[in-house]
Formats: sequence, structure tokens, C-alpha cells
Amino acid sequence: MTDTPAAAPAGVDPVALTARLIQCPSVTPEDGGALTLLSDLLSEAGFECTHIERGGIANLFARWGEKGHARSFGFNGHTDVVPVGDAAAWTHAPFSGEVHEGELWGRGAQDMKSGVAAFAAAAVDFVRDTPPDGAVVLAITGDEEGDATDGTVALLDWMRENGETLSHCIVGEPTSPDSMGQMMKIGRRGSMTAWFTATGVQGHSAYPHRAKNPLPAMARLIDRLASATLDEGTDHFDASTLAVVQFDTGNTATNVIPAQCRAAVNIRFNDTHTGAELSQWLRREAQDVSRMFDITIDTEVKISGESFLTPPGELSDLIGKAVAAETGVTPDLSTTGGTSDARFVKDLCPVVEFGLVGNRMHQVDERVPVEQITQLKAIYARILRDYFA
Amino acid sequence: MTDTPAAAPAGVDPVALTARLIQCPSVTPEDGGALTLLSDLLSEAGFECTHIERGGIANLFARWGEKGHARSFGFNGHTDVVPVGDAAAWTHAPFSGEVHEGELWGRGAQDMKSGVAAFAAAAVDFVRDTPPDGAVVLAITGDEEGDATDGTVALLDWMRENGETLSHCIVGEPTSPDSMGQMMKIGRRGSMTAWFTATGVQGHSAYPHRAKNPLPAMARLIDRLASATLDEGTDHFDASTLAVVQFDTGNTATNVIPAQCRAAVNIRFNDTHTGAELSQWLRREAQDVSRMFDITIDTEVKISGESFLTPPGELSDLIGKAVAAETGVTPDLSTTGGTSDARFVKDLCPVVEFGLVGNRMHQVDERVPVEQITQLKAIYARILRDYFA
Repeated sequence: MTDTPAAAPAGVDPVALTARLIQCPSVTPEDGGALTLLSDLLSEAGFECTHIERGGIANLFARWGEKGHARSFGFNGHTDVVPVGDAAAWTHAPFSGEVHEGELWGRGAQDMKSGVAAFAAAAVDFVRDTPPDGAVVLAITGDEEGDATDGTVALLDWMRENGETLSHCIVGEPTSPDSMGQMMKIGRRGSMTAWFTATGVQGHSAYPHRAKNPLPAMARLIDRLASATLDEGTDHFDASTLAVVQFDTGNTATNVIPAQCRAAVNIRFNDTHTGAELSQWLRREAQDVSRMFDITIDTEVKISGESFLTPPGELSDLIGKAVAAETGVTPDLSTTGGTSDARFVKDLCPVVEFGLVGNRMHQVDERVPVEQITQLKAIYARILRDYFA
Repeated sequence: MTDTPAAAPAGVDPVALTARLIQCPSVTPEDGGALTLLSDLLSEAGFECTHIERGGIANLFARWGEKGHARSFGFNGHTDVVPVGDAAAWTHAPFSGEVHEGELWGRGAQDMKSGVAAFAAAAVDFVRDTPPDGAVVLAITGDEEGDATDGTVALLDWMRENGETLSHCIVGEPTSPDSMGQMMKIGRRGSMTAWFTATGVQGHSAYPHRAKNPLPAMARLIDRLASATLDEGTDHFDASTLAVVQFDTGNTATNVIPAQCRAAVNIRFNDTHTGAELSQWLRREAQDVSRMFDITIDTEVKISGESFLTPPGELSDLIGKAVAAETGVTPDLSTTGGTSDARFVKDLCPVVEFGLVGNRMHQVDERVPVEQITQLKAIYARILRDYFA
């Protein structure tokens, strides 16, 4: 802090903060100093910071204001990043955090150190300039790009155990495909994978009646599943999809009928389904085919996340209004895309995702226009002002 | 030769000859001295012997009597053997050729050094004792257990180029499942393999509409092929069979739709089909499914052998009568089983397979009762006498 007037915008500079975060090499599960950098900044601004470690993962919970307040506005995000891939292929070193021609370069520039910097900067300025009647909470994890079992889930577990609450939450992931303000995500499809193992009896291909071939049974099952229409879509969701992703026997001989084969399908499902109901359907189909072909079929299901929807209302209106005011664009309310930690937060409070343009996420030469970071901070700041107004 | 009376049966001892052949380590493509052993024996008995080498494989053509004679009776067999597998697992060393409790042990004891020894011994005795008005031909290969491209095929090519003929032929492979004299084979099913490669466009399993998944197309194709009835069988053949033997993508991820998958089917077909007609059917099915799913499917077909039938008649009657006289059993006329070199010989003359019991072929501790070898020589000898009577 200095009492000399500066040319920089008032308050915390989100671009400089993003650059410093990029310089922390925080490829999951490494933290690289990113969360300490943030907790130093937040503590100084009056946030109560708790480092929550689980399974070797660092996470940060930071609250300004009264614990358990009915108006506790939250931001969720992650400081871990995916690997850089071929480091030599980058135009600028992936952990340099350099600005070139108006763009900030580095791994995490879009996904999502800029988002974390934008909401941290907005929150610090906000509680300093206009201390609200309520709480501002930042729940930041180091395990979003990995298994996500010791990240936001660990933060939420700790919050429950410690009487911490949220009334509404924004996940600061990149949400717009092409241009700033284009899209917010009010829900996500669920995701699940099923593995089928069909087991018969090996034999010589010249004598198929002495063998029990699992392959025709599996082909029938996969054909049935791939041909099924799960639904036609809903008000806020596209139709659910089933993708066949694996089918293997590992048999190299042509005169041998193999004893076993495996296949896997991945389902992305909307709010007309639950993982449990789809699991039952998959098992029923497998049993039908099993009986038809007299082949044992084992089914193993992993549900990565249920579908969820935060119906359009207070939170999406708040975000939409702020985005329109700062960018002139009214964002679409979308439920497309893969999973995010919003799938965990939705159990606690209404949650919407809004952040940057995500067109270079996970790529070599990931970078972000610096003006988008400044704009995102302004949007988050306006949301906080409007929420507590 | 000696003028001292001996206790051994008159003429060439087929058991001793089999033992000496077993002692030649002739795992394909090695000859191990087996064919020289035979050509020495046959030359001494007045056979004109030609060693025909092709592609590193030794083969032996031996003829007694006039080249191109209208009555040229042939025997076909092989001296190469399959690998011994785990040599330590054998009760008696696999190339020892020892007799224990009435059984001769070793790799090739059933398949088919005993058969070669039996017809060689019968032929030598026959031409010496009752020189026929005609020719006796032995066509013996060292490439039956391998690719079979430089074995009986090479012998037949050489015969055509050199004006050699056969009027009738016996292939001396083991043909009876359980007991001596039970079965001869008057035909064999054809065999072919088709490989299908389905190619689409890789993509993320969350966005199947942006990918083109080859797996559902392949599952449909395989289901259609496996569900088809090729025929109901014929007078002399069981129904044709199609066995799905491979189906693989090699994709380990569950969030990726793979670009390609491969599957293979093996067809054993009777005399209602030709390999060409079945190839057309397979390609038509693949094209149908390809259009239906907008997925490229390439089809590659290898026909290992066409089906063939030597209709019951002179040759099968001759063999049946000799077997009944020597064993008291009338053999069934069968077309079951895999392929043999009879599939090549049938282009030259009527051919029937008749030999030993084949219950221990290709196994550890392969062995044969010595009395079966003696009996087989007697059957072959009777066939020669009756044929030229």
C-alpha cells in the first residue's frame, strides 16, 4: 500500500494477481504456493482463512463476515491446472505469466486462475469499500482437474462439520464459448459410465456349438443401448446421450472363440433421469440379453455426477443483469458441457457458473485477453454490490 | 535284408519306422531328416524319389511304376509336427519315440508320422510282393501344420508341371474320434475369415453429435452376421457356422469416442456355398450397415479353403471294405472337422481321408497304441491290393 496516487485502477489488480497465480506451478495435485498467495491477500483484507488439507490436496476456505449469516454469498473455483503437455511447443513458457500484445499467457490463464483472481480481487475491494450486512465466502480448491474427491467435496464436508453456510454461489469456471458474457450455466447434465463383462466358454471356431461365444451377446446389448432414445430433452436441457466408448476381447487368433469380452458406455443425462434409474435400466437390458444368449453379463456402474438445475430466478437474474451492465450482452442460460464442481455445490445452495471465454482451455499456448480479466472482476464486483444492496 | 528267419512281421515294421520318424525333430518348417529317411527306404524299394523344396520347406514326391498311368493310387501325408509345448510336462521326451506299455510316445505319434509310416510300409511291401499294373505315389510334405503354402500345394504344382497324375488318393490324417475304423472323411467344410474395420471420427463422449462413433455400427453388423442362418445343412454336411472371433477398439478412456474399431468372423461352410459368394454377402451386409450409420466399413476376406465333397462311390467303398475286413467296423462317411490338405488334392482326383484315432493330437504326451499302427498298415495294404486287383 502506498499513499502516492497511481495510474493503476483502484483496488486489487486482477491481471497482476492472475500472473502471480500462473507463476505458481500448481499441476494437480501440486499447490505450487497458489493458495498461500491467496490466503495472504484475503487475510490482510479481513477474511478468516482456513487451509483444509485432505488426501494430499490443499484447499482454502475464506470467509469475511458472520458465520452462518442468511446472506452468505459464495464463489467457488480452483487453482490447480492440467499438465502443460509439450512445454517446448509453447510460444511463451507456460508458468511465466507474461503479457504480450494485450494477452496474459500461461497454463491456467483461462481455466481458471483468472477467474479466481477476478473474484478474489472483487471480494477484497468490496468488503473494504462497502462492508456488507452478510458474509462473503471464497471456497477454492486444488483438486478440480484431478479426481475431485479431495477438493470441493472436502471443502463442503468441512463446511458442514463447522456450521459454515452459503445462501448463493457462483462457480467461476469459463462458461462462454466465443465472446465475453455470452453464456452462464444454470445446470449440468449428469455423467455415468457402465462397464459390461460378458463371459462364455472358449472354444475352436470350427465347433461353435461346443463353445459359448460372448461376442454376439455383447454386440446385441451394445446395439440395443446405442439404439435407445433416452429422452427428447427438457425445457433447459438437450436430450440425454449414450456413447459407446469401449468394446474389446483381446483375442488375436481367428480360430478361437474367446471366453470373455468387455464393453463400456458413457451416459450424459438431463433432469428427467437419475443415475440410479439409468443404472437399473442398464442392468435390466444386460439381464435380458444375458438370458437370450445364455451368456453371463456383469454390469459395473460409476456415477460421476447427477444432473442438476438451478431454475432461472434470483441468482441467474442477478448475474444476467450484472453481465448486461458491464458488457452490453445478455447471457444465455445454458446446461451444456461436461461436469464441474457445481455438481457438488448444488447440494448446499443455488449455484450458477459464470466466467471467462473458454476457447483455449487445456491447450498449448493457453492465454487470455487482459481486458477480459478486468471485465470479469467488474462483473463479480457488481454482483456483490447488487446482492447486498 | 537277411535270410535268417525273424520273429518280426514280414516286411517293413511301421512301428519302428514311426519311432525313427518321431526321432527326427521336424517342427514346421524344420524337416529334421524325416524325408531323407523316407526317400532312402522308398528308393531302395524302387520308388523314383524327388525332393521338392519351396520357400525353405522340404517335400518328397515318390512314385513306383509308370508316370501318368491311368491307375495311379496316391497317399498324401505330412512329416512336420506342431511344437511340443512345455517339454518338461511330457512323461517321456517328445522326440524319444519310446514304447511304453504298448504305446509309442512322442510328438507326431498320431498326427501323423504313424500314418506316413503305415502307408510307406504298406506301399514298399506291396510293390515288392505283388508289383501292380499301375503306379503307387506318395506325396509327403513338411508344411501342413504351418501356412501350408509351400507343402502339398508345392507338390501338386510340381506334379502338374512334370506330367505326374493321380487317379485316387488317400490322405492319411487321423480321422476317428475314439476308436479305430470309426470314421473316414469324404469332404471338408470350407473355411474363411473376414476382418471388418469401421472408421468414424473421434470425439468427446459428452458431445456424441460432434463425433462419428464406429462402435454402434460394428455392433449392428456383428449382431446381423451372428444372427444369420447360413443354411440348414446338406446330405453330407452339417449346417455352416459363423463364429465372431474378434471385436476390439483399444480405447482405454471412457470420455473419448474412438475413431476406429475392428472385428473378425470365421465361417466354416458346406457345399451349398462358395467362398466368393459368402464374401459378397459379407461385403453387402457391411455396406448396408455402413450406409445406415454413415460409418466407413472396410472388409478384408481370406478364404483358407473351399468346401469339397468326394461323393460316396468307388473310393469310399474301397476304404470301407478294407476297414471292415481288418477291424470289423464299418466307418462312417463324415465331413466334420477342420481343414486338411485334402482341400488341395481334391482338385486333382477323388480324395478321402482315413487314418488313426486322433484323440491326442497336438497335446502334451501325444502317443498311439502300437497295434493301431500295425492295423493301419494292414488296412492300407488291403486297399492297395483291392485297388489293383
